[in-house]
Amino acid sequence: MQKDVVLGMDIGGTFTKFGIIDKKGKIYVENTISTHEYETVNDFALALRKHLYNTLGSDKSGFNLRGIGIGAPNGNYYTGKIEFAPNLKWKGVVDLTRVIEEEFDLPAVLTNDANAAALGEMLFGNAKNMKDFIMITLGTGLGSGLVVNGQLVYGHDGFAGELGHTRAVDNGRQCGCGKRGCLETYVSATGIKRTIFELLADENVDSVFRKISFDKLKPSLITAMAEKGDPIAIKAFEKTGFLLGRSLADTVAHVSPQAIFLFGGLAKSGKWILDPTKKAMEEHLLPIYRNKIDILPSALLKKNIAVLGAAALMWKELGD
Amino acid sequence: MQKDVVLGMDIGGTFTKFGIIDKKGKIYVENTISTHEYETVNDFALALRKHLYNTLGSDKSGFNLRGIGIGAPNGNYYTGKIEFAPNLKWKGVVDLTRVIEEEFDLPAVLTNDANAAALGEMLFGNAKNMKDFIMITLGTGLGSGLVVNGQLVYGHDGFAGELGHTRAVDNGRQCGCGKRGCLETYVSATGIKRTIFELLADENVDSVFRKISFDKLKPSLITAMAEKGDPIAIKAFEKTGFLLGRSLADTVAHVSPQAIFLFGGLAKSGKWILDPTKKAMEEHLLPIYRNKIDILPSALLKKNIAVLGAAALMWKELGD
Repeated sequence: MQKDVVLGMDIGGTFTKFGIIDKKGKIYVENTISTHEYETVNDFALALRKHLYNTLGSDKSGFNLRGIGIGAPNGNYYTGKIEFAPNLKWKGVVDLTRVIEEEFDLPAVLTNDANAAALGEMLFGNAKNMKDFIMITLGTGLGSGLVVNGQLVYGHDGFAGELGHTRAVDNGRQCGCGKRGCLETYVSATGIKRTIFELLADENVDSVFRKISFDKLKPSLITAMAEKGDPIAIKAFEKTGFLLGRSLADTVAHVSPQAIFLFGGLAKSGKWILDPTKKAMEEHLLPIYRNKIDILPSALLKKNIAVLGAAALMWKELGD
Repeated sequence: MQKDVVLGMDIGGTFTKFGIIDKKGKIYVENTISTHEYETVNDFALALRKHLYNTLGSDKSGFNLRGIGIGAPNGNYYTGKIEFAPNLKWKGVVDLTRVIEEEFDLPAVLTNDANAAALGEMLFGNAKNMKDFIMITLGTGLGSGLVVNGQLVYGHDGFAGELGHTRAVDNGRQCGCGKRGCLETYVSATGIKRTIFELLADENVDSVFRKISFDKLKPSLITAMAEKGDPIAIKAFEKTGFLLGRSLADTVAHVSPQAIFLFGGLAKSGKWILDPTKKAMEEHLLPIYRNKIDILPSALLKKNIAVLGAAALMWKELGD
């Protein structure tokens, strides 16, 4: 008998991860293709289908592919389109869902990558019994998915949950969105790199980071150096956590969640980001919210949570 | 035949407004009793029942009272209790719903006053066809009710929507909640008074406000003086609107509403508060949200929207 499965995929600026996933979240096949080498979504969809069938090989006949769930930056659930994604090659408004549906002759559904991660956590991770929680994804930028009353918050236009572009610092760092001081210019892989270089300017202390250029610095090195006691690395995490925690206190005042999950490269640094974030959040919370809200790393840190979440979205649409 | 009605009430620190309201939002009877002269909720409930029956008089037999909806500061929908309301005489955690149910032998339901106002706008005002909107109530403080996917956002603990206590200004004015710089210390009847006095200190310009003490200044005078061209009054509205609009831009990044409604004394000042709020919100919005979101005065500015909303909440519970 054929296994009922969906294709889940997480489209990033450089790579697209995809997987064949059943209703319980079991991943049968996983792989990655390039995103940025395809000039159009039509080329991308064609390559994806070929790549998927190559990956499946002779297993293909064992699966009954029911549909395709997609997480992508600036993906709009309502319209099925990617709208003005700054990190993708495909500019303007791209009708990705229609192109994928035509290429595969299957139903497809789209949301943004952070919403997909929130759904993944809700269906397969640590938010299984939660009706109100927040997912923060810390990648190149800061994405967020809000769940209220057990439902993803899309908002009137499908673009709710842009916490990366709330005001963290008055007249602060320049952001790609055109504003200044946005949270993601401080709290993200890029943000903490910027903080390292700010600290190198502000402080006199010696540090391994004085020998590395901005372009060469990998965020994972910051965690490694904090572990070794590098004072600049430790201070960078403290500042990053402070600004995240202070902002999360305001987010709590909006939706009063049970828990906040952190996902992505920065979340993997564990206590280095979690401890200062928790401390600053508690300090800035209204008293009625204090000591109630967990800040936790995603249960799916080592898995492709956004792929799982995109699959979950499609299962939800199929509704069976 | 008896008319099916509910009792809706809006409990404030000084007065409680109540009304007898049918399912279409028609108000048959309205009245007010003191809140602060009753030391306990039991005394209050007894007085309310007597006062209501006196008000109804011989009309009493014409109504079939089905239940009681209550809006109150720090009212918790989940627990039915008022919890640590700073402006009420009843301290700590007060089981208001149980006391009212016993006094009237009818079902009762509670939420906070801003949530009640949001429900009122949704059922009887300008948010009738909206699934995603925000209600901001500008009274002594700043309250807020968030509606997402057509549902009030209560959050995990029933205390969602405390926008009055988000960070408007770093290390800003002292707030009653114990924090500093909270939005309501700038944007509320009390907040704009504080701004008037800040401006009297900062500026040299002559103003009628130089002749009035802080305790004597009524917020309605600020609107009247702005109309007459008083520079301090005009600047106070500009500053108030700027801070409200800048904060609302961040709220939009959370829930992406269709519209934002302003209610309460300050909202009655019309363009004086609306114009600078809109301007600052647009300036601080992420580009994808710009020129999409209306900021409007509540349709029920001249009515007891919180009384109507509390009644609406009870009708929703009755579900018929």
